[in-house]
Amino acid sequence: MRQPVDGYRVAIDPVLLAAAVPVRAGESVLDLGCGVGAAALCLLARQPEARVLGLEIQPDLAALAASNAEANGAASHFSVVAGDLLTPPLKADGAGFDHVMANPPYLSAESARRPDNHSRAIANVEGAARLANWVAAALALCRPRGTITFIHRADRLDRLLAALTGQAGAIVVFPLWPMPGKDAKRVLVQARKDIKTPTRMAAGLTLHVAGGGFTQPAEAVLRGETPLTL
Amino acid sequence: MRQPVDGYRVAIDPVLLAAAVPVRAGESVLDLGCGVGAAALCLLARQPEARVLGLEIQPDLAALAASNAEANGAASHFSVVAGDLLTPPLKADGAGFDHVMANPPYLSAESARRPDNHSRAIANVEGAARLANWVAAALALCRPRGTITFIHRADRLDRLLAALTGQAGAIVVFPLWPMPGKDAKRVLVQARKDIKTPTRMAAGLTLHVAGGGFTQPAEAVLRGETPLTL
Repeated sequence: MRQPVDGYRVAIDPVLLAAAVPVRAGESVLDLGCGVGAAALCLLARQPEARVLGLEIQPDLAALAASNAEANGAASHFSVVAGDLLTPPLKADGAGFDHVMANPPYLSAESARRPDNHSRAIANVEGAARLANWVAAALALCRPRGTITFIHRADRLDRLLAALTGQAGAIVVFPLWPMPGKDAKRVLVQARKDIKTPTRMAAGLTLHVAGGGFTQPAEAVLRGETPLTL
Repeated sequence: MRQPVDGYRVAIDPVLLAAAVPVRAGESVLDLGCGVGAAALCLLARQPEARVLGLEIQPDLAALAASNAEANGAASHFSVVAGDLLTPPLKADGAGFDHVMANPPYLSAESARRPDNHSRAIANVEGAARLANWVAAALALCRPRGTITFIHRADRLDRLLAALTGQAGAIVVFPLWPMPGKDAKRVLVQARKDIKTPTRMAAGLTLHVAGGGFTQPAEAVLRGETPLTL
């Protein structure tokens, strides 16, 4: 996986995001804001018979994503389009994508913590597209009864749920706990379009043991041995 | 504690709610929808120097709450007013109450599961006042930087956070886990008025051990030995 030395750098978040998408062979997945393609390639490593389309606002990252697809032998299953989700240069595939996943910018547009690096700032801080726009785009491009899955900072959980409530059902809040007894720093939220199933607060996944390494369940997910079942 | 034989019956929820309010001696607390006064009396058992006002839409429950206050020697610290939070027959105490707590009806007005018992139906199923109205009333009657604390079903977490986001800060989501690894059925949500502190997803409290009894930390909270620190 090639990525900018001094721009946005992939952490474990896209790996966990990809593990949470309940994709089956032959299904289509939209990766909103795909960056260099980390989540898409993780998803295809688990389910090579899926088809992923990545949408990325930064053309240089979109080009890197395409070359990463090539380098990982996944070019036939992973296409990348450069564009803005506010005016997406794509239509829903027939009735819409089976699954939409997103790892949006973590910091709100009001945040003062804008990185100096321009590319990293675009990846990390919301631009014109706010979190509610990301959710609206995901829902617009998802097929009825399809899933949308977001990973985000836990301190944006209220905003994320506010954007989803009443717009989607079967909402699952799945916290990622750094250690037992500690606040969650990240949260996975999944929902289904045109479904009325009630919201669930799932037990989530504990990432680290006291010493600092990953827990066995987290390690298995990160190595691609097991998906995350929300 | 006297309560109707066949109406709303107190469970552990108001006990946990009262334990989560960070009340200090001399402070004022509004119990929105106080029922027969369970949460108010639990709070006063822990902090006898607080002053609690209960608002209850069912006059017979309000009367029971007042007689329960008397029976528990708390009448000088717990007053009850019968009325509707949509047109509250009270004004904020000076700048507002230091704390507002609520255990609102758990079922949405759209729910088909309306109990036959009329009083229980009013306690369990939203009437004209929807969850967003409960949150708005709590915020309107709370002083700046005061706390509002709700206990609710986890399947309403999205609605509860949607009502709070942007309207209050220092939001804490505190799940109540029935057992390790199981979905939370209840959630405590606390927020502060006119505060910009980010939202937190707390580890929460596990209520039961595998055998069925309460965990030691839950037992200590339910017996009033320790407050819940969100």
